[in-house]
Amino acid sequence: MLVDQLNTAFNPRCIAIAGAMGHPFAMGYRYVSHLLNYGYQGRVYPITRNSAEVLGIKTYSSLKEIPESVDYVICCLPASQALDLIEQAYYKGVKVVHFFTGRFSETGQEDAARVEMEVLQRARELGIRLIGPNCMGIHYPKSGISFAYDMPGEPGRVSMFLQSGGAATQFSHYAALRGVRFSKVISYGNALDLNESDFLDYFSQDPETEVIAAYMEGIRDGTRFFRSLREATLRKPVIILKAGRSSAGARSAASHTAALSGSFGTWNTAMRQTGAIQAQSLDDMIDLVVSFDCLPPILGTRVGVLGGGGGNSVLAADEWEEAGFEVAPLPQEIEGEVRKLLPELWWGWLRNPIDMSIFPEEAFVTNLGGTIFRMMAQSSNFDLLVTNIMVGGPMSGEELVALVGNEVEDVLDIARKENTPVAVVLDTGALGTENFDDVRWKCLAQAKTKLLAARIPVYASGPQAANSIMRLIKYYRRREDILSTSTDAPLAGSR
Amino acid sequence: MLVDQLNTAFNPRCIAIAGAMGHPFAMGYRYVSHLLNYGYQGRVYPITRNSAEVLGIKTYSSLKEIPESVDYVICCLPASQALDLIEQAYYKGVKVVHFFTGRFSETGQEDAARVEMEVLQRARELGIRLIGPNCMGIHYPKSGISFAYDMPGEPGRVSMFLQSGGAATQFSHYAALRGVRFSKVISYGNALDLNESDFLDYFSQDPETEVIAAYMEGIRDGTRFFRSLREATLRKPVIILKAGRSSAGARSAASHTAALSGSFGTWNTAMRQTGAIQAQSLDDMIDLVVSFDCLPPILGTRVGVLGGGGGNSVLAADEWEEAGFEVAPLPQEIEGEVRKLLPELWWGWLRNPIDMSIFPEEAFVTNLGGTIFRMMAQSSNFDLLVTNIMVGGPMSGEELVALVGNEVEDVLDIARKENTPVAVVLDTGALGTENFDDVRWKCLAQAKTKLLAARIPVYASGPQAANSIMRLIKYYRRREDILSTSTDAPLAGSR
Repeated sequence: MLVDQLNTAFNPRCIAIAGAMGHPFAMGYRYVSHLLNYGYQGRVYPITRNSAEVLGIKTYSSLKEIPESVDYVICCLPASQALDLIEQAYYKGVKVVHFFTGRFSETGQEDAARVEMEVLQRARELGIRLIGPNCMGIHYPKSGISFAYDMPGEPGRVSMFLQSGGAATQFSHYAALRGVRFSKVISYGNALDLNESDFLDYFSQDPETEVIAAYMEGIRDGTRFFRSLREATLRKPVIILKAGRSSAGARSAASHTAALSGSFGTWNTAMRQTGAIQAQSLDDMIDLVVSFDCLPPILGTRVGVLGGGGGNSVLAADEWEEAGFEVAPLPQEIEGEVRKLLPELWWGWLRNPIDMSIFPEEAFVTNLGGTIFRMMAQSSNFDLLVTNIMVGGPMSGEELVALVGNEVEDVLDIARKENTPVAVVLDTGALGTENFDDVRWKCLAQAKTKLLAARIPVYASGPQAANSIMRLIKYYRRREDILSTSTDAPLAGSR
Repeated sequence: MLVDQLNTAFNPRCIAIAGAMGHPFAMGYRYVSHLLNYGYQGRVYPITRNSAEVLGIKTYSSLKEIPESVDYVICCLPASQALDLIEQAYYKGVKVVHFFTGRFSETGQEDAARVEMEVLQRARELGIRLIGPNCMGIHYPKSGISFAYDMPGEPGRVSMFLQSGGAATQFSHYAALRGVRFSKVISYGNALDLNESDFLDYFSQDPETEVIAAYMEGIRDGTRFFRSLREATLRKPVIILKAGRSSAGARSAASHTAALSGSFGTWNTAMRQTGAIQAQSLDDMIDLVVSFDCLPPILGTRVGVLGGGGGNSVLAADEWEEAGFEVAPLPQEIEGEVRKLLPELWWGWLRNPIDMSIFPEEAFVTNLGGTIFRMMAQSSNFDLLVTNIMVGGPMSGEELVALVGNEVEDVLDIARKENTPVAVVLDTGALGTENFDDVRWKCLAQAKTKLLAARIPVYASGPQAANSIMRLIKYYRRREDILSTSTDAPLAGSR
């Protein structure tokens, strides 16, 4: 039932936009424009009394007048007209109404909260499901439905439900730069009817979803949510960012989505029992989503690092060990092979992380780093390999282009041919437009694009990579433990 | 004495490069090239037997043959020739020799360590000071001396000493994107003669240095260093990143700079007593340097935030409160002024952080956010103001350009006219070259450039801003406490 209703919302034969407008600053304009721009193939019915067309599409003066039954309604009307819309929706056979409309309970006003409850009650009586109110609704590239400009149009494997529309767009734009593509994104605001548990259950069984992420300010039904979460995490990774943790945050959450944030201590305890992965910030959530989207299940913690210089090797050793990894010793046979090429390297000097600054400059020309990295990938001593691609060092921009070109080709080739998972640490930098023509920064930007195209995860720093991949390992270890002691049939892996 | 010697190294009348080479992959080529490219005004003497000129400059076959006395030598010779160079340096009146030359004690070989000790002993006997060995040496834009390509050529207020050359270039390139400019940078490797305490003492009294940063793997003389550090932090902020904290990191440090990392617990305890600011990573060190370089001394923790949307306001409230700030209540008179403009806003709905998503769309056109931010800056209720500049939200790229343009102009104007310090959270994103023409990302990149030009600190995320500015506040509070109870004359502020 829930599945059918949400499937209809994601794949409607036609969509009505109540409160459509001709002015580009109005959401009633933007929703129509997004359907056109993202290539929605069904019929679009803007509803307004103010103009005969919006963006060239004929309008209707009310929902009732649309000459066919309507699957899905996006409502941008004022809150005072919400109840009437529900009545009309019933006569048009509407399955789901998304209320962009806000100024309900989040205002803190009793009158507004009462109207909200009336809308819910009437929708329940009439069998209409609600998304929102006070939210952006659905982004589903496969159907050509979206709530914002310039979101990635290609479908992906990640689905998300977020209580905030701003967080939804902010996350999506920055995650897209990291190579993340979305199956379905739902911004759900006040969670009046359909709530976090509904979306979680839906994504948990959705064949188009491999990784689930969520941004939550409160919970409507804690008992159900944590039960759903325990089940979902055995199927797919679920990454959750909880906002409204602090007292100031809880006050903001109340006036944003009328959410009751609850005690963060209680939340943490409940979360730990579910196997969900907690994100610390929007950036942290992006790192986690990138990790689960690009990496296979990893169960071991032995990491091999191509360091990118002396100091960076020391820092990398600290960062990976502090995150819980074993910076595994370099196998003797690899050190032996390197000494055949460079007999002047004393035994014991070369270590993991590989400090390429102890090699003579010619080693960059002969690509000794790539040779070593390939041997490490072929060794059984490492569960994960990491390359640090640096912008600094003694090289000129042109030399860097050659070096990074080699490094990227090696990573791509090794990832294609060998089984050891590979991650890359590469910071493209806080660029100003004046840096766009700089050969050095351009080189890193191009390297990032190439790596992402091959679905190699790229992180801006060692700690970000190490901390998110460690949580990936813990997730898969826990799941393996539970599934191996369970009598149920094994569930599909996330990849 | 130390001051004179280092002053000579930073301002030499002439420089000899021992082991100069014509091949662009050799450091003996690069050092000559940097002197030309960064505009060094003194005389340059490449020393080599292999060619009559390097980069068009006449060479000499040995140091002795140079027709004048020499202040400063950069040595790229093999370790086996180091001792002979010291002897020749004495006859030419050399004050300081920088040994880029490596393969000394960091190799773990007894023979190599013995040669290193002989070099030190002979240099001490002859009164020559050493930088290194196994390091990149000096970057001092004012004199036109540098160790890497594409470093910022304009002098700044920040000086650094780093045990790693790679970390020095890596840090400098990324910090430059954040608007940091350097007075002096020293990469000092094995710290055989001149060590961390010497550089700290020098920077502590250097009139061209306002902020000190350091990357250290070990300490040569702990007692002296912590005493110097206690004194230095009363004059200037000293930010230190310790590497070799973990067991893997300590092993890497030993083979990188022969450093004995020591116990990190002991280090932490000693550090806390000095008033130095500990960085957790290179990125964290950049955030701290940006904070101290751009912000005045701040003693209060009441922060006002222009949120940039609902979810981002909730997250900002969490992040600033979790970092130790008080997300101060919005003064009633400001709420009252806003309600005059928007009578439909109920009392108590508008809060700090300001959630602009509760305003009607027209508020973006009338720039209500800017009006509120200005009132907050003029109020006495805030010790710090923060604007979140977002890429997402419902706006098209063109609308974003107009909005961000307003936001930047407001911040610049408020920072110019009002006394409350202002920081900006703005993530320019992990761009690929395919994003360089995107109006949305270009707009953020341009905004960052404009803000940095006015020395407004820009951070990629709320937690990075909050955590680094909180440490700035703690630093200035501690210093104020100590100086106010001391009978000594007050020391100069860092700004």
